This record gives sequence, C-alpha cells and structure tokens, in this order.
Amino acid sequence: MPKWIKANEDESNVVISSRMRLARNLSNYYFSNKLKAGEAAQVTKEVEDAVMSGNSALKDQFSLHNMKDMDELERVMLIEKHMISRELAKTEMGAVLIKEDETVSIMLNEEDHIRIQTILPGLNLEKAWDIADKVDDVLEERLHYAFDERFGYLTACPTNVGTGMRASIMMHLPALVEMGYMDGVLKAANQIGLAIRGIYGEGSNSRGNIFQISNQLTLGRNEKELFANITGLAKQLVSKEIEARSFLKKNQGIKLEDKIFRSLGTLQSARVMDSAEAMSLLSNVKLGIEMGYIKDISTREIDLLFIRIQPAHQLKMFNPKTPGERDVKRAGFIREQLEKMIEDK
Amino acid sequence: MPKWIKANEDESNVVISSRMRLARNLSNYYFSNKLKAGEAAQVTKEVEDAVMSGNSALKDQFSLHNMKDMDELERVMLIEKHMISRELAKTEMGAVLIKEDETVSIMLNEEDHIRIQTILPGLNLEKAWDIADKVDDVLEERLHYAFDERFGYLTACPTNVGTGMRASIMMHLPALVEMGYMDGVLKAANQIGLAIRGIYGEGSNSRGNIFQISNQLTLGRNEKELFANITGLAKQLVSKEIEARSFLKKNQGIKLEDKIFRSLGTLQSARVMDSAEAMSLLSNVKLGIEMGYIKDISTREIDLLFIRIQPAHQLKMFNPKTPGERDVKRAGFIREQLEKMIEDK
Repeated sequence: MPKWIKANEDESNVVISSRMRLARNLSNYYFSNKLKAGEAAQVTKEVEDAVMSGNSALKDQFSLHNMKDMDELERVMLIEKHMISRELAKTEMGAVLIKEDETVSIMLNEEDHIRIQTILPGLNLEKAWDIADKVDDVLEERLHYAFDERFGYLTACPTNVGTGMRASIMMHLPALVEMGYMDGVLKAANQIGLAIRGIYGEGSNSRGNIFQISNQLTLGRNEKELFANITGLAKQLVSKEIEARSFLKKNQGIKLEDKIFRSLGTLQSARVMDSAEAMSLLSNVKLGIEMGYIKDISTREIDLLFIRIQPAHQLKMFNPKTPGERDVKRAGFIREQLEKMIEDK
Repeated sequence: MPKWIKANEDESNVVISSRMRLARNLSNYYFSNKLKAGEAAQVTKEVEDAVMSGNSALKDQFSLHNMKDMDELERVMLIEKHMISRELAKTEMGAVLIKEDETVSIMLNEEDHIRIQTILPGLNLEKAWDIADKVDDVLEERLHYAFDERFGYLTACPTNVGTGMRASIMMHLPALVEMGYMDGVLKAANQIGLAIRGIYGEGSNSRGNIFQISNQLTLGRNEKELFANITGLAKQLVSKEIEARSFLKKNQGIKLEDKIFRSLGTLQSARVMDSAEAMSLLSNVKLGIEMGYIKDISTREIDLLFIRIQPAHQLKMFNPKTPGERDVKRAGFIREQLEKMIEDK
C-alpha cells in the first residue's frame, strides 16, 4: 500500500491526497525534447549520483527504474499508483527514482529533466512541500540547475517557469457531481488560475467522482501564495461537498441510502465488472462510509481498492487472456476483498 | 402458506402450479348479471348449505367470505393468493367459500353462479380435476344445475358452455422471454385453442416471467381432450424452456450468472423497491436456483415471497401511509426474508 493512502487525518475524507511537484532542469543540457539518448542517460546518471552517492541524506531510500527496462504493464502500474505521468511512460529515455514508501518520486527526462513529486494523504500541501523542498535542496547542492535571477527556475514549458511548482489536491466530490454543480465549479476555479479535472475520465464526468485541483501558472507568484490559493479552494470545496451531502441526505434520504447499499450489494455479488462501473460503485460506497451509512468498511480500504482494480494492476495480478476474462477476475477480486474487509471488523 | 405452493414434485420447477375451474349455474335463477341482491344472497345461501350442511363430505372444511363484508385490502389479498378473481372482488354480491388449506375455492355470483376452483403445485391437472370433480358431485347432488343434454353445462358466456371447465397451468419461463420466443409461443398456442398470458402485467412482458396457459373453449370437447391438449403444450414449453436455459448457459455463461447474482445482491441490499422490480429480480433468482447457481435458497421460498411482496400483502403487513413508504417496507421485508432463508440452510 502506498503510504499516501494510509492515514488520512481529515475527518471528512473528502480530500484523498495532496501532491507537490517541482520542475527542475540542468543548465548544461538542452531541454529533454532536444536530448539524444546518450545525453538523456547522462542526465539520469547525474541525478542518480546526486541522490544515491556519498553523504546524500536521501541515500539508500530510493531505487532507479528506467522506462526502457520496463514493459508496458509495469509502466502503467506506476501510473495507476500516481508515481509517474503518462508522458514519462511513453518515453524510452525516461526514468524514475522512487522512494521505498512511495511518497516521493523523481521523474527524469519527462518534459523537464527533473520532476520531484511528493504525495501525502489528506489536505497537507505544506508538508508535501517541505518534503519536496528537502529533496530539491539535496539535488541543488550537487547539480547545476537552470535558474534565472529574474524569472526563477527555467522549464521546458513557459507555464512552469518561476517556482516550477505544481501543487494538486485529489478530492472525492460525489454529492457535488450528483447535484450537477461540477461544471460551475470548474469554471469558477479557472477564473482564479486553478484547474480542476477528473483523474479517471474527462472533465466533469470523472469516473469515481475523483477530481484533482491544481495551479495552472507559477510565474510571478511565490509558493506560499499558491498554497493559500489551492488550499483555500480545496477547503471551500470540502465545505460545499459536505453541505451537498447534508442536502442530499435531507432531501433524498432513503433514495440516497438505497443507491449506496445497492452499489455495495452489486460489488458483493457481480460476476463480471469493468473498471468504469467498479469505480462508480466504489465511489458510492466510499460516500456511504463517509456519511455513516456503512460501518464495517474503512474509506482507506476503498481508496486502496480503487487503485488495485485499475486495468494494469488487474493484469499483473491475474494475467488474463482477454478483457472479458479480466472483468470476471476483477469482479471476483472485489467480492473477495469486500468479504475480507467485512470479516475483519 | 397456501398448500399449492408447498411441495412441487416437478424437478424442473418450470411449472409452478396447475389450476382447474368448473363453471356451474343454478337452473332456477337468472345468470348472475341479471340477479338482484336478494336473489344473489339466495344463491349464496343455497350453495353454502349444500357445502356445509348435513351429510356433506365437505362439511367443516370451508369458510364463507362475502365481498360486502370485506374491505378492498382483504379482497386484493385473496386475488394475490389466486383464491378469487378480480371480477369477483368488484361485485358486492359476490362471495367465496375457501377450503382451509387454500387448495379449493368456490366463487359465488361471479360471471356464473358457481365457480369451483382447485389449485395444486406442479403439473397436476388430473389431480386438480379429481378434486374439483368431487366438490362438483357434492354440489350436483344437492342443487339443480342448469344443464342441457345437447350442449352440456350452461354458462353466462358461450365460451364456457359444455364442460364449463377451464384448466390452466402457471409457468416460469425466463429463458424463453430472454431469448424473445414468447411472442411466437403466444401465437402458436392460440392456433391450437389455448391462451397464454402473463399473470402480472400484460402479454409477453409479464412481470416476473410468469405465464398462465389455459384453454379458450370448452364446447364440443371432453375433459380428457382438454387435459391432454394443455398438458401437452405445458410439457413442450418445459422442454423448450430447459433447452433455452442450456443455450443461455452455454452461450452467455458468466453473463447469465452475473445477472442472477446481481439480482440477488440487489434484493439483499436495496432500501427502496417497487413490486415490479422485485418480481423481475426474484424471477432471476428463481432461475438461478433452478439452474443450480444459487444453492442456499429454495424455489418454494421464492414462490412464496412472490406472493408476499404483492401490494395488498405488503399493505396488510406494514400498513404504510404512502406508496413510497410501502416500497421502503418491501425492501426491508425482502432483505430480512432472504437473510432468514440463507441462515436456515
């Protein structure tokens, strides 16, 4: 289990996790998209040495994974665990350094040479920033970053120039979706320079009702302003989501409860299930737990199941020959996991 | 539990029950639709005396229920148990004599003065006929039936003239419905003088996939011919249904199993359920039991639940204030009943 899923102190559980990403480049190389394979390998080597060698505070905590040594399945599993981006998975020159507890990953030769990424449970951007910042300090001591006094950190894409920082928060917003509020929320966020997108599927039709808020620009702002901006919106969304849940409870009452328990019943009994349906039903169950309807399962168990039912994880677990067989295995796996959760209580 | 639901020897369970109905009239009264209330009461009294009095073999086994003494709810419950017809429930002059084990009822002042009805589990028309025939003998000894040497028993509607007999068989045909064969079956039956109709809902869209085959004409045929005709079609339908189930098992395989277990899961977990949905899901569960997918519930338990979830039964049990509340009570009742069935195994 990745540590970012483990212990969430946010009592509402609306916020699943907080992520911090710092984009950095080395001054003595072209940006990644201009690099030849040999040069990209040198970038990887330089960063690996900085992390692993000598008196580094990070020594022994990280392991290096080169994309070219991994098959499609292993790459997609890292995407599903939010350790790497889809873009990194596509490039043969890419690599990633992963901390053993899976709270930190350092992507190499993605759009930028270096992308330090931290992910923590709950609403915890400052701590995620602290951790990323310490990794950044270790690297900066040993490497020559591309940095400009006036602009700040230089990056391949102008939108990242400045702090090179992208902060993002993953949230579960089923009641706002149910009430049809997400389109409005998306527009409003956009006006204050934040982006909201579904992390599975597109736009306001996110599968599993899971969304990510992140800043769109970093130039001309400092980190603290960005935290405040995103954390502010996240807190607003938490309270709007909780309001919407109360409203639904009051106005739909038994219908809401019915939907939640039917979802659980279907997960406990289906013999064939694709990941889109599973995510949608798990989202309802998660809502049911958070609203106190379901007592004998924890949200963390459901968050973990969310990841384990993703296609590559299922492929790795069961090695099915066809998508049809995968859906049968997934249904069996979900039944078995839910039975265990309920038995363990 | 009505006895006709109790013990079905038909291993396939496709046939739920067999029903025999004899229409009789008294020669010294107009047909029911021409009777005044006082005359109808006399008809009732004459038949009641014939059944209950003196040396009648039926004495002490029957109780009389006058429609005018029953409220809407009690009448509909008798319809749902197949003890009386919708038509009888509508007439204030109607009455019914019901045998204590609920295998025989004698409707009075329905379309005809007397309608003797027997209902037995499984494919058992001959035995149902024997029982109805014995009741008929007792009545004929004591009453003056309207009978014509050339035509046979005279009835209010010409289609019943002759034997006055209508035989019917109640069958569960989910696989034939699933495969879209029922429209063809309905037409074919019609051509050999038999009618098939859904007993809940209309035509080939029967709720719960439960159908009734019956003869349309009785004139010019004897009882044995009619039995043979209906029993023949019923046996053909049983084998077609079983063939269709094998076909579905072979060709849909896991999808069929998925549908069956999702239906069970939904029944076990829903918080709101109307009777149409409940019947449809129970039909799938019944199919699942009969095909060996579900082991810990018996078809008889499901057949009984079919009746107990009907609107009037639910009304009687829970006295809900609104249809919405009834659907909530029904869902709770179904969950509780299924839990009991599974625990008892």
